[in-house]
Amino acid sequence: MARGRFITLEGGEGAGKSTLAAGLEETLGQRSISVERTREPGGTPGAEEIRKLLVEGAGDRWTATSEALLFFAARHDHVERRIKPALDAGRWVICDRFFDSTTAYQGAAGGLDRETLTQLRRLTLGDFTPDLTLILDLDPEAGLVRAGSRGGGEQRFEGKGLTFHQRLRQGFLDIARAEPERCVVLDAAQPPDGVLASALAGIEQRLGWPR
Amino acid sequence: MARGRFITLEGGEGAGKSTLAAGLEETLGQRSISVERTREPGGTPGAEEIRKLLVEGAGDRWTATSEALLFFAARHDHVERRIKPALDAGRWVICDRFFDSTTAYQGAAGGLDRETLTQLRRLTLGDFTPDLTLILDLDPEAGLVRAGSRGGGEQRFEGKGLTFHQRLRQGFLDIARAEPERCVVLDAAQPPDGVLASALAGIEQRLGWPR
Repeated sequence: MARGRFITLEGGEGAGKSTLAAGLEETLGQRSISVERTREPGGTPGAEEIRKLLVEGAGDRWTATSEALLFFAARHDHVERRIKPALDAGRWVICDRFFDSTTAYQGAAGGLDRETLTQLRRLTLGDFTPDLTLILDLDPEAGLVRAGSRGGGEQRFEGKGLTFHQRLRQGFLDIARAEPERCVVLDAAQPPDGVLASALAGIEQRLGWPR
Repeated sequence: MARGRFITLEGGEGAGKSTLAAGLEETLGQRSISVERTREPGGTPGAEEIRKLLVEGAGDRWTATSEALLFFAARHDHVERRIKPALDAGRWVICDRFFDSTTAYQGAAGGLDRETLTQLRRLTLGDFTPDLTLILDLDPEAGLVRAGSRGGGEQRFEGKGLTFHQRLRQGFLDIARAEPERCVVLDAAQPPDGVLASALAGIEQRLGWPR
């Protein structure tokens, strides 16, 4: 059996990652691709416990270093106990946020040095990396309006202010520029159907469809 | 004002670290040394939240890597927000467990490679290290009997079996042999007064008392 493909969705708040993930799951299902849809932080029982520490509470609840360590603690559990087993079983994994979010949120926007994040990633994941990363790019002012309308208790990052979210957007665009083979930038200001069509075109071009 | 001293207490389950910490706090207080007594994992509100994830639940709840990342996430918060400020204010900090416990539990006994732990420590703490580490050495069979009589919900590590705890003891002794300037091994089979007297002799010899 062929190993599955690992696709991550990245971008700021309210960029439409969940909507795109649902659309991809449906479309891939129509192509008889077995899909595992998941998200970070979280995705396993242990990682979801860590998620609560990360997405709730005050913005300055954690030092930048503690925050990054918590993200990678959750990520190791998620990768070892869910993502790798699914890929080994031939399933395609669609994950809402992965390590690029840590690079953008804790690094580019949060100020943690790049070298620390690179080492943490290597220590935690070795050379495990997504096959394709779809970066949903959106003006943060528009994204925060969308995210604010969601409500709920997971507001810790939304509350960090516009400058933070502008650095965040630039952080994602910098990742895409640094790793063009892995990353595709999508214009998230399009209607959802347009974003989905662009994402499917990216998948077809970069990964191809299984026969 | 002189910077305070940072003393860590290490050892397996039931070795008498809490009793020794209380005895040290009292004796140092009689010498007019201002003492901050704390413990790991925990010691700050955030780190105590992480503690719950670490000391409760099933033994295989976390991968070894996730577990180490969680310990260092809690430790960074504890060091930056409590230990360093106390030392800077001239207080002596007595901490029940610190990074040697991670080396012994997750490394020597838990099987995580030494290099990963060394890198995590450097990433998280730089060159911050205890001024003195008192290692309470005890036959693990005796220690587990003492620890078992404590009760309570924090049994996750006690439940890991005798072989684990024998590797743990050896792990602490290996640390003491590798860093003899920093570490003093105390015979924890002595009565508490004897352990305290040995600890005080170690502090006097290694650190001296403030004038």
